[in-house]
Amino acid sequence: MSEEYFDPKLKLITLNANKPLAEKIAKEVGVSLGKASVNQFSDGEIQVNLEESIRGDEVFVIQSVSDPINQSLMELMIMIDALRRASAKLINVVIPYYGYSRQDRKARAREPITAKLVANMLEMDGATRIIALDLHAAQLQGFFDIPVDHLQAAPLLANYFIQHNLTEDVVIVSPDHSSVARARQMGTLLGGAPIAIIDRRYSKAEQTENLEIIGDVKGKTAIIVDDMIDTGSRVTTSVEALKNGGAKDIYAAATHAVFSDHATQKLQASALKKVIVTDSVQIPEGKQFPKLVELSVGTLIGKAISLIHADQPIDHLFKTISEKNED
Amino acid sequence: MSEEYFDPKLKLITLNANKPLAEKIAKEVGVSLGKASVNQFSDGEIQVNLEESIRGDEVFVIQSVSDPINQSLMELMIMIDALRRASAKLINVVIPYYGYSRQDRKARAREPITAKLVANMLEMDGATRIIALDLHAAQLQGFFDIPVDHLQAAPLLANYFIQHNLTEDVVIVSPDHSSVARARQMGTLLGGAPIAIIDRRYSKAEQTENLEIIGDVKGKTAIIVDDMIDTGSRVTTSVEALKNGGAKDIYAAATHAVFSDHATQKLQASALKKVIVTDSVQIPEGKQFPKLVELSVGTLIGKAISLIHADQPIDHLFKTISEKNED
Amino acid sequence: MSEEYFDPKLKLITLNANKPLAEKIAKEVGVSLGKASVNQFSDGEIQVNLEESIRGDEVFVIQSVSDPINQSLMELMIMIDALRRASAKLINVVIPYYGYSRQDRKARAREPITAKLVANMLEMDGATRIIALDLHAAQLQGFFDIPVDHLQAAPLLANYFIQHNLTEDVVIVSPDHSSVARARQMGTLLGGAPIAIIDRRYSKAEQTENLEIIGDVKGKTAIIVDDMIDTGSRVTTSVEALKNGGAKDIYAAATHAVFSDHATQKLQASALKKVIVTDSVQIPEGKQFPKLVELSVGTLIGKAISLIHADQPIDHLFKTISEKNED
Amino acid sequence: MSEEYFDPKLKLITLNANKPLAEKIAKEVGVSLGKASVNQFSDGEIQVNLEESIRGDEVFVIQSVSDPINQSLMELMIMIDALRRASAKLINVVIPYYGYSRQDRKARAREPITAKLVANMLEMDGATRIIALDLHAAQLQGFFDIPVDHLQAAPLLANYFIQHNLTEDVVIVSPDHSSVARARQMGTLLGGAPIAIIDRRYSKAEQTENLEIIGDVKGKTAIIVDDMIDTGSRVTTSVEALKNGGAKDIYAAATHAVFSDHATQKLQASALKKVIVTDSVQIPEGKQFPKLVELSVGTLIGKAISLIHADQPIDHLFKTISEKNED
Amino acid sequence: MSEEYFDPKLKLITLNANKPLAEKIAKEVGVSLGKASVNQFSDGEIQVNLEESIRGDEVFVIQSVSDPINQSLMELMIMIDALRRASAKLINVVIPYYGYSRQDRKARAREPITAKLVANMLEMDGATRIIALDLHAAQLQGFFDIPVDHLQAAPLLANYFIQHNLTEDVVIVSPDHSSVARARQMGTLLGGAPIAIIDRRYSKAEQTENLEIIGDVKGKTAIIVDDMIDTGSRVTTSVEALKNGGAKDIYAAATHAVFSDHATQKLQASALKKVIVTDSVQIPEGKQFPKLVELSVGTLIGKAISLIHADQPIDHLFKTISEKNED
Amino acid sequence: MSEEYFDPKLKLITLNANKPLAEKIAKEVGVSLGKASVNQFSDGEIQVNLEESIRGDEVFVIQSVSDPINQSLMELMIMIDALRRASAKLINVVIPYYGYSRQDRKARAREPITAKLVANMLEMDGATRIIALDLHAAQLQGFFDIPVDHLQAAPLLANYFIQHNLTEDVVIVSPDHSSVARARQMGTLLGGAPIAIIDRRYSKAEQTENLEIIGDVKGKTAIIVDDMIDTGSRVTTSVEALKNGGAKDIYAAATHAVFSDHATQKLQASALKKVIVTDSVQIPEGKQFPKLVELSVGTLIGKAISLIHADQPIDHLFKTISEKNED
Repeated sequence: MSEEYFDPKLKLITLNANKPLAEKIAKEVGVSLGKASVNQFSDGEIQVNLEESIRGDEVFVIQSVSDPINQSLMELMIMIDALRRASAKLINVVIPYYGYSRQDRKARAREPITAKLVANMLEMDGATRIIALDLHAAQLQGFFDIPVDHLQAAPLLANYFIQHNLTEDVVIVSPDHSSVARARQMGTLLGGAPIAIIDRRYSKAEQTENLEIIGDVKGKTAIIVDDMIDTGSRVTTSVEALKNGGAKDIYAAATHAVFSDHATQKLQASALKKVIVTDSVQIPEGKQFPKLVELSVGTLIGKAISLIHADQPIDHLFKTISEKNED
Repeated sequence: MSEEYFDPKLKLITLNANKPLAEKIAKEVGVSLGKASVNQFSDGEIQVNLEESIRGDEVFVIQSVSDPINQSLMELMIMIDALRRASAKLINVVIPYYGYSRQDRKARAREPITAKLVANMLEMDGATRIIALDLHAAQLQGFFDIPVDHLQAAPLLANYFIQHNLTEDVVIVSPDHSSVARARQMGTLLGGAPIAIIDRRYSKAEQTENLEIIGDVKGKTAIIVDDMIDTGSRVTTSVEALKNGGAKDIYAAATHAVFSDHATQKLQASALKKVIVTDSVQIPEGKQFPKLVELSVGTLIGKAISLIHADQPIDHLFKTISEKNED
Repeated sequence: MSEEYFDPKLKLITLNANKPLAEKIAKEVGVSLGKASVNQFSDGEIQVNLEESIRGDEVFVIQSVSDPINQSLMELMIMIDALRRASAKLINVVIPYYGYSRQDRKARAREPITAKLVANMLEMDGATRIIALDLHAAQLQGFFDIPVDHLQAAPLLANYFIQHNLTEDVVIVSPDHSSVARARQMGTLLGGAPIAIIDRRYSKAEQTENLEIIGDVKGKTAIIVDDMIDTGSRVTTSVEALKNGGAKDIYAAATHAVFSDHATQKLQASALKKVIVTDSVQIPEGKQFPKLVELSVGTLIGKAISLIHADQPIDHLFKTISEKNED
Repeated sequence: MSEEYFDPKLKLITLNANKPLAEKIAKEVGVSLGKASVNQFSDGEIQVNLEESIRGDEVFVIQSVSDPINQSLMELMIMIDALRRASAKLINVVIPYYGYSRQDRKARAREPITAKLVANMLEMDGATRIIALDLHAAQLQGFFDIPVDHLQAAPLLANYFIQHNLTEDVVIVSPDHSSVARARQMGTLLGGAPIAIIDRRYSKAEQTENLEIIGDVKGKTAIIVDDMIDTGSRVTTSVEALKNGGAKDIYAAATHAVFSDHATQKLQASALKKVIVTDSVQIPEGKQFPKLVELSVGTLIGKAISLIHADQPIDHLFKTISEKNED
Repeated sequence: MSEEYFDPKLKLITLNANKPLAEKIAKEVGVSLGKASVNQFSDGEIQVNLEESIRGDEVFVIQSVSDPINQSLMELMIMIDALRRASAKLINVVIPYYGYSRQDRKARAREPITAKLVANMLEMDGATRIIALDLHAAQLQGFFDIPVDHLQAAPLLANYFIQHNLTEDVVIVSPDHSSVARARQMGTLLGGAPIAIIDRRYSKAEQTENLEIIGDVKGKTAIIVDDMIDTGSRVTTSVEALKNGGAKDIYAAATHAVFSDHATQKLQASALKKVIVTDSVQIPEGKQFPKLVELSVGTLIGKAISLIHADQPIDHLFKTISEKNED
Repeated sequence: MSEEYFDPKLKLITLNANKPLAEKIAKEVGVSLGKASVNQFSDGEIQVNLEESIRGDEVFVIQSVSDPINQSLMELMIMIDALRRASAKLINVVIPYYGYSRQDRKARAREPITAKLVANMLEMDGATRIIALDLHAAQLQGFFDIPVDHLQAAPLLANYFIQHNLTEDVVIVSPDHSSVARARQMGTLLGGAPIAIIDRRYSKAEQTENLEIIGDVKGKTAIIVDDMIDTGSRVTTSVEALKNGGAKDIYAAATHAVFSDHATQKLQASALKKVIVTDSVQIPEGKQFPKLVELSVGTLIGKAISLIHADQPIDHLFKTISEKNED
């Protein structure tokens, strides 16, 4: 480990949303987590305690904006306020899971764009950099004017399939219309696998959603790829369609394991072989299930932090397989 | 009711924290509450629905930033974002109870000033005016650069004691060092009643707090006055000290009934005669108790809104008994 | 035409990028275009002339940020500066084509996000509202904090196919991975037509792009749908793939006719039957070609302006067929 | 003296309001005051001269915003402008006395909040840190979003009484309702002394102010504690009340010796034994008087500057005796 | 007088710097000056009193930023703060004389640009429009991003000479290198009079300034034109040079009568026939002198205010004789 | 060359407007130009490529905002966006020629102030410093709130005349009313030469401009001095007037060789002996002409960059001959 990793000026602080990941990151960086804690008063107000000086330091605050999402966000906002007033030199905000990221545009009249609101809140509060992971839409980078280091978990997820020899006769499945580029990226990482799309059509009249598979899945190992699994409906309805379409084995891979509602029961009960996710969102004991495979992004994030602190480029950390859509 | 009260350009919207108060306000203003609702997705994200156009309107959003405090605050932030993007002309934010108001300065090293953070969040989001009630410190008005209309419930609370003939042989008690000016104000409203102070001294060595009464309470009706009752400890320890000091009957009066932890049980079990509060914070069924007297600020706030919408001054709505501390 | 259309406070101003469209909009609104002109000095500097007072007026400035794109953008910036300094009350910026919209995220290390830069420029300059049409990504709405009225040309384009009885045995084709949701929307507007995707895979080794069709196109009328046609390569390579895949007749539909390089020659020379576009970008004489069908968005934009000026909602102007991607 | 004190990058600059204090601070820091001067043209305009380069330096500008208060403030504003344009790296503003601090809230309708205005002016101008001393209300810290290092003179003042054996049979007196917490703090520093309050009641009818003492002062040594002495009326009327109440010896202690109007004559003529103040405001020759004891905050501020420049915490410099007012 | 002049929404407020001019303006506008006053506490702090509601009003605040210049500026800043917090709808700042306007660039290393600082202060404080008169450099308009209505007194001054038949055999004299364009403008207003320049050369060696006249003045009536007369040195040294150069009668005309130091004595003692100025700066009794001619800009400013309030253009109020310096 | 010149943290980047000058600057600084390029897509959009990491670096971007002016400006804006997002520590913008600098005030009603707009754009985009050369008006420094290092080419131009023994019997000519101070400065640099002014009067009636010479030019060597030569009309009409006035030899000297329209032909065809300019604007092959003398500002700018990077003052680089216009 190089010298700069022990630079006393680098401070790593974790809030409450994902402490196990923060520990992994700290281990990779080679520092201890800073002496800071976040409590709640009995009326629900958050109290932040910074128990050591961070004057002049480059601070990295780690917080997933995950359930309880509003509390997680306010923990982060209040800590940033404390850090700024306590004379931190740089406030790098590490957000493994960016809550509210799906509210990123007005899909109907008079909707908020909460993902932008969150960005505005963090910038206004004095964050000097965002380190994010697989944002729901890449355009969220542009919601910020401060630098955003956007990490990707795709190579990590791809690696699981490679290591388990799941690259032959595979089809990558986008569970809806907006994840097709993500499916193509995974297909390329798995050696040029073909893709298929679940075409969802909502019938207003019948109040039902009809699913059709576009592409060839018969007899193949299908890997459903998404950025997050929330209630699990999008994945499990895709699984049913794929089964009907003759797919052999079915896997699901996603970066963010939001797992709300009865997601974990539904996933376990489905025809899925395995559900591969990362630890960007902390998965509590009660949400673990046999089919779940949890990969850690701790090393990835830790390496990024060390490089950023040393003013080194980070793009080699992940393969950037981008689709430029210039005509 | 005058014509302008029905002006279609005035829109009143309530969020979830205190709907009964919003109904009372709407009745006073003479309008219906706007078609808007706030839900939560299963992962905890807040969804705001504005079901009618507010384009070009002067909107008043009513929300107490009370428990669940972070959710209440985020409901407000997200609704403001939606209103601004939906072309509201003016966004007046009515905050009967301003959560985090006690985190208004750095009392120890490296503390946040969350009350200012909340102010910054609301301004950044596009609020064009704040209508607040009995802020913990009057200086919070200065946390904003937009206009703040600061309403006072003191006359309302004073009126209770006047109507119940509790103005003779009365002493107004400040439960700690920082509420003395508030006690003096109440004393003046009750015809010039004397005041007393509970002098709290924390002993670091013994980890105890010693209370002494400064002023004359023997044989008197004591009215403890505070801006809010949270856990109830400050009030109930004051009650004990006053009992020991020979006070006859003891009342507590406060604007904001935060009532966290076991506050209501402690208050009911104490030697208090009555606890007079307002409905700035919604008091759920389970927190009602026999000694509680709840007065509504609905008329006060409603009148303020009507006047503000009509560009009329509001200072006659409450007597401003201010202490100018120029030497 | 209602009275408000003649309200002297509404001023419509066009810059140089698309005067014919501005004339159509003005006709729909029922006003004359304001006395304003934009010239260039011999050294390339832009000179703006506002020949009538706009003090206190609600101004709508119409400008497509199209080729010469940097000049078009600066014409707009300079006019906004002049309007703000000349005391316009509201500066509504109507951008039928939003140049630089594809530079909306960092796809590779150290890229700019020029679409956000443009948004920041317009907001900083004092624009109070954006009226845009079919932004490349819906997330661009969130690049602004001022209200964005986002119009859609999809119903207009769909109407062409309906009127020409091209709804039977039709397949809607997304020319790449990121336009699938747009294809689905068009499919729904055409009565539930199926979709297909051109799966483009770039081979680094061979420096070639391989195209495969996902979905069923054999014997069908294929309609390629995109938000814009720039060099035409994406469309014409799609056409070839579709021809090889057995498609019968092939059409292309897009909102923005950027037509750079040899686009028009390529399109005319291709196996396409027709290319249906709108007049969001002005198509000069020299870029007209026999297969081109140009529909006007003048009525749509004009109606939106009238409604906005009258503080009326505009969402009924276009069917909002949105895909919510909550799981 | 440690090496960093001679770091050429630390520049100390004084303006005109309190040069003797600046000299003391410079001596403590171990540097010479920077070559800078401030003159006035004959029409009253301020001229700032920075006679040496401060490019890339960490500058500390020392200025009390004291009488002539508007000129002192503008000297500071203009110097900050000059420093920012001359490429200072950090602009730390040291304000031993913060004028306008009492205008910190709207006590009556349509009042300004000038203390916030001053904060906004300094932030807007590019100040990167405020170093203040005993602000009139601790909430003023929240008027800033940049870091505020808030120093306290209470231990210094307490030390005077300890060294003069004035800790027995002592009562600390708050001269009005808003300084009770300050009195309690001093009481604790003096070993747990009791407190008393001067209860001022303004009679509108008789246009008089009636004073009553709350608490026990008979036969005791009374120490009136305040943050500042301005016209001296609040102190001298307190002295009279205390004399009438049977206090033995009476002292007054305050951080800021504003001494306007005939304050010094009134104080000297009163029954006070001594008036203990600091040199946060320069006391000119003509305002010196026999009972005056002037303690210097030069060492305190100098030490703070050295620590801040070395990125070290400063909270050990003064005992923080805070009263948390959570219930 | 038209109806809009009595619109209750227009409020005219004067501060202390130039009340006689404010009265003239009010008379022209046809309204009474608002009930507002500005006092000073004994410690020098400014107190602003707004004695009537201005909620929702369009306010015009009149203040010359003249000696005592820092106090005048702070009166204005504090009043704007009060107006903004008291919910004024529009805050138009009328600045007949803009102090610090000559500090408009860095002429030497490390100088401030105080004229920009003043602009920043006013904008930050919430001013929504500036109405200024003959700014020292026209570029000061660009120091603001809010609208600036820049009035000109040149026609008023020219009129004096026309009415006194001083247009024959006249030469307009620029007293230094930077006022030549102003001299040319006056020459044109006086029917095409020639101009001359006082060429000042500072000799560092001899520490003297040598003056030479460029242009023909012999036997002519010379009119020295400047934007302001401060100490009077520039004018009186010009007068001497002109006398030596054979000029017959000599006049001086300037918009702003700053008259600092012994300006008035020097002017009276000089060979000047008359000194023609406006009342943009209040000239106290003690600074009146026989040769002084004072013209009022009250009508000009009053008319501008009425037009601005009615959203009418104002450029016809003064002839704009501009020199475009495009090559 | 000192060590810091090779500091890897200093990065020099050039855009397309003036690469030869950038090469000269790089040579002086002693570094290579950074790996960055700017291309244009076929639709006119600018593409910026930063091919090496600049994370944590102090970057100097060199770009003249010259013809094609809007493209040059947008290249700069987009590069700054890329640099900021790529975590540059400092973004110093070197603008040898500041286009739009003449649009620096509202000369007529409803004009923009484009020079301020450009300043606002650069600041908003994240530029941390401007390094400019001979701005059209010195007041443009005040259009920025970030530091501006304003370099002067006058000594360089003066040096040409000194080296060619053109200092005897010389008169410096201002070609219009607004460049007189510049002429005086050059006169002083040439040992105290006298000045003359071309007095231009526009006759509205006859639509003609009449020129008169003020000052003595007969038999002298006349040097016309201006900040820029654009179309050349101002210079060539001055030459004619000077010839008529009996001037012997005539030279023109200007910092910025804009040379638009047929400037170069006109200059070559005129009676001028030589036209001395700098390379602040790149002069393409086709605009070279025999009478042209091009001096390089590469050394001046390079030295400034090295000093700025080393936090050293730069004012000794050029003689600051300023005219303070205090009366």
